[in-house]
Amino acid sequence: MNIYAERIEILREYMRRNNLDAVILYGIDPHCSEYVSDRWKQIEWLTGFTGEAAELVVTANYAGLWTDSRYFIQANAQLEGTGVELHKTRIPGAVSPENWLIDNLCSESIIGIDSLCTTVSRKNKLAKSFELSLIPDLIDAIWKDRPAIPNTPIFGVSTGESPSDKIAFLRNFLDKEHCTHILLTALDEIAWVLNMRASDIEYNPLVISYLLISQEDAKWFTVKGELTDDTQSELEFLEKDSGVQILPYYEINSELGDLEPDSIVFADLNTLNADVADAIKCPLVPGISPVILKKAQKNEFEIRSMRECHVQDGVAMENFLYWLDKRIRENDIPSEREAADKLQSLRSEIEDYMGDSFECISACGSNAAMPHYITPKDDDRHMPPFGLYLNDSGGQYLSGTTDITRTVPLGECLPQEKEAYTLVLKAHIGLATAVFPTGTPGCRVDAAARLALWRHLYDFGHGTGHGVGFFSGVHEGPTQIRQNMSDSPLLNGMILSDEPGIYSEGNFGIRLENLYLVEDAGSSEFGTFSKFTPLTVCHFDTSIVVRELLDPWEIEWLNNYNQMVYDTLCDYLEPDVRIWLEEKTRNI
Amino acid sequence: MNIYAERIEILREYMRRNNLDAVILYGIDPHCSEYVSDRWKQIEWLTGFTGEAAELVVTANYAGLWTDSRYFIQANAQLEGTGVELHKTRIPGAVSPENWLIDNLCSESIIGIDSLCTTVSRKNKLAKSFELSLIPDLIDAIWKDRPAIPNTPIFGVSTGESPSDKIAFLRNFLDKEHCTHILLTALDEIAWVLNMRASDIEYNPLVISYLLISQEDAKWFTVKGELTDDTQSELEFLEKDSGVQILPYYEINSELGDLEPDSIVFADLNTLNADVADAIKCPLVPGISPVILKKAQKNEFEIRSMRECHVQDGVAMENFLYWLDKRIRENDIPSEREAADKLQSLRSEIEDYMGDSFECISACGSNAAMPHYITPKDDDRHMPPFGLYLNDSGGQYLSGTTDITRTVPLGECLPQEKEAYTLVLKAHIGLATAVFPTGTPGCRVDAAARLALWRHLYDFGHGTGHGVGFFSGVHEGPTQIRQNMSDSPLLNGMILSDEPGIYSEGNFGIRLENLYLVEDAGSSEFGTFSKFTPLTVCHFDTSIVVRELLDPWEIEWLNNYNQMVYDTLCDYLEPDVRIWLEEKTRNI
Repeated sequence: MNIYAERIEILREYMRRNNLDAVILYGIDPHCSEYVSDRWKQIEWLTGFTGEAAELVVTANYAGLWTDSRYFIQANAQLEGTGVELHKTRIPGAVSPENWLIDNLCSESIIGIDSLCTTVSRKNKLAKSFELSLIPDLIDAIWKDRPAIPNTPIFGVSTGESPSDKIAFLRNFLDKEHCTHILLTALDEIAWVLNMRASDIEYNPLVISYLLISQEDAKWFTVKGELTDDTQSELEFLEKDSGVQILPYYEINSELGDLEPDSIVFADLNTLNADVADAIKCPLVPGISPVILKKAQKNEFEIRSMRECHVQDGVAMENFLYWLDKRIRENDIPSEREAADKLQSLRSEIEDYMGDSFECISACGSNAAMPHYITPKDDDRHMPPFGLYLNDSGGQYLSGTTDITRTVPLGECLPQEKEAYTLVLKAHIGLATAVFPTGTPGCRVDAAARLALWRHLYDFGHGTGHGVGFFSGVHEGPTQIRQNMSDSPLLNGMILSDEPGIYSEGNFGIRLENLYLVEDAGSSEFGTFSKFTPLTVCHFDTSIVVRELLDPWEIEWLNNYNQMVYDTLCDYLEPDVRIWLEEKTRNI
Repeated sequence: MNIYAERIEILREYMRRNNLDAVILYGIDPHCSEYVSDRWKQIEWLTGFTGEAAELVVTANYAGLWTDSRYFIQANAQLEGTGVELHKTRIPGAVSPENWLIDNLCSESIIGIDSLCTTVSRKNKLAKSFELSLIPDLIDAIWKDRPAIPNTPIFGVSTGESPSDKIAFLRNFLDKEHCTHILLTALDEIAWVLNMRASDIEYNPLVISYLLISQEDAKWFTVKGELTDDTQSELEFLEKDSGVQILPYYEINSELGDLEPDSIVFADLNTLNADVADAIKCPLVPGISPVILKKAQKNEFEIRSMRECHVQDGVAMENFLYWLDKRIRENDIPSEREAADKLQSLRSEIEDYMGDSFECISACGSNAAMPHYITPKDDDRHMPPFGLYLNDSGGQYLSGTTDITRTVPLGECLPQEKEAYTLVLKAHIGLATAVFPTGTPGCRVDAAARLALWRHLYDFGHGTGHGVGFFSGVHEGPTQIRQNMSDSPLLNGMILSDEPGIYSEGNFGIRLENLYLVEDAGSSEFGTFSKFTPLTVCHFDTSIVVRELLDPWEIEWLNNYNQMVYDTLCDYLEPDVRIWLEEKTRNI
């Protein structure tokens, strides 16, 4: 029997013994993180599905997994033989797992949820239709060798603003909101407040923890593990300088339970889990965490630092593209895996490199048509000497976070590949050069990229841009540039990606991505405006540009950008790379 | 004492005698029409304010009028001496009249509303905070010479689809929704179903009425007035052919009250008034009227007919622009009023002209900077021999509805006027040439126009485009092209305006508006796409275009459009006008 089918049977046995008619698992950790550490890969352990976003429903005679279009192909393959059926989300007529339960179970049914890995909002939604059995770490009963909560070494980072200042900002917020405590549960928010990082989650330099702040106290609940001398002194400094007390991770519930009845706790229900929420006995004020908008608007130190790390990242990228070009010319094209590893090794030479910011997508030909393609770990097939190669990757540095995509030819390209490449470049430039009233919601400028594609009947299924953290998550809220409607504004100091693409299934995939800083663009009697200025420093290939598809000002932008790349990087490059880059950045 | 202050005092006396602590009046008629006939100009009668959108609150010692930025200047002037305070809506921190009442009255207060001129949704909102006294025609008690319900002659129009077919469509809808009746209250929806028109509201060829349809019956409640022979035979035909029974307007309430208890009535709460809603004793299913989306997608007959009436309207417009140009050259520039009247007289020569589709905006210089400027009735001042003249106007024809804005030089223009004119043209072309996935919400393509302005730190405060009816309201839902987020899709067969502008307060105003038909643009592996094709046939002035601000393809579009205008109209023009237009449409 398939190992996953077996595990699901064990879960069913557990359900019978505990009178559960169904179990619903959300693919998140207790902090609603985008990526989760191994301990919380419950759905992967149960089904074998490794995608980032999934929900699982198991009843006595049915198991279904919900995920979106990024993972349809992968899910079909990975779920084979498990008895788990794929439910496609974000398609017309899609039924959510909650509604599936409503359609298929009677209202007297009892649903088991892992209350640690279910947000309050989802729990409340379910509770309207069913009796719930809230079981923290539900999976513990059947997952015997489940990994422990990670406790990698904690360390401090410079961000231009002290934890004391940030705590003062939160206390000021508490005053205004007439609350006594603010409970932060999202890991990137806690990392921002405390200027503390660790490696508890792959690609995310964060510390698994909760943070509870009142006018008097600041209590940080985390698993300290074995303390190195460095960590010890970091924590002592944090306590001395900012009054932050370190407490064991699991004491958050008793601490909350012991709050005076006249306390009022502010918390963001989008990331608060149902187990911790249940521990709060005093009044709870729900709202959007004030950290989200503040953190997204980088301060001068962070901006300067991000600029510097982008120069170093650009050097690694150009050395990589040079290496790839040389291998192509030598008729010894690497495999997708070798290319990904080469780039990682070049990045790791950078002084304050702390790891990649997400799993590198290194893909040629039709593989690149899958926007979330995963390069096989052991792939050693040469890439073909024609068509396009796409690399989407980024680094985590003490000085910031990068995220870049370049698509380059491996040899001869077909006319439709050249046309699509040029149109993606046109779309990229369209957004890069957009000016807009400061505070415009991101969804309102999405068309600045897409219009160039739509005119030629092209489109792409993902967002055009996402926020990026400062040595934090590579996907940061609140503002995105995408078609989904949202009020989240584009404000000066935010950093966003610009990454349009074209994916022709079975043929080729193209994406061109830079990060941009939102900056003031001046004022007039019509308002105050903002623009994007590039942070990413790496040339765009011009060899496959179809010149006639670009307007004169677009060609000018491209030439200027490539010239800036050369001027910025030339002093950091070996002579042969410099000469090569001078050639690659020549005006077209 | 100011006459309006006096009338408000009489209202207060009425309130005292009826134990009302406040009265709130919404500036709508019982059908939630955009324009209202004189009978329902209650706020104008009470305050003197003539703007289209207003709400009025009167308490024992306070009176406030709520309106938006289009009317701030006008309201300030018209409300002087009335004791009524202006509340600005749609500005940051704006407080709605309902919230103003909550802030200023205690919760035991009794609020009087005219239940005929209050939608159910607004009534329900108010009812959450206050005790309401629902008084149909509340104002009758004090407005002694109030106009009667209009009953202009009813007549039928050809639309390519019979009332029987449309009623069958509604009966099919009732089946699907498991309802027994659909109640239509919006006048343009009723006019669409019955192919019937009248002139009950200025600029809107509609019939004040309600329509109640079941599987068996179709009952039309209206004030018939004196019947001409023509009207008589129209109504007889409607009854014979489509089974539509005509009943007195005020019988709608008793008809609804007499429905069997197992009836289920479908109605759209956005246009249903509280008085009629109260008459419904059986279950009511609220929802969006199915007529709205269906009506917006014009059929082939309507499209062909709209094209024809736009040619005739274009002839009138070109004759008007020729006349204006001639008067400028003769150094005898007309007044704004003379220009407006001239255009109306040219339109009225068209065979099936039925009136204007809204009040013509004829404005020069800084007057044009007010997007909703009203040309004085008796203005006889020559316009100055320099700067810009803006004309926004349209006609109602048996064959369709038009709406067009042109801005032309009256003489020498300043560099900033030329720059702004060119950028508005660029914004217009940006939207006119947009291609987009069929069904894209209008708000997602708004940027196609605005981006050209934003890049030069310009913007404008109104929507970029609105739907247009077929010989019906010049503003038609559901889809608009504007910044406000809405899911309403752009679908083939819809007709929308494209009317970006720049308004420099105290200096000049520019707007350039065409109507466009949404049409199929083809399909690819990336989806099905739509584009705009022009309906409006009237050249854009090129004499003040700053060529360098336009991309080559924009100049090509402009030249092609102007050439199409000449080719389409030349056979309809007098020789001197034709020669003039040939010159005006020469390639730049």
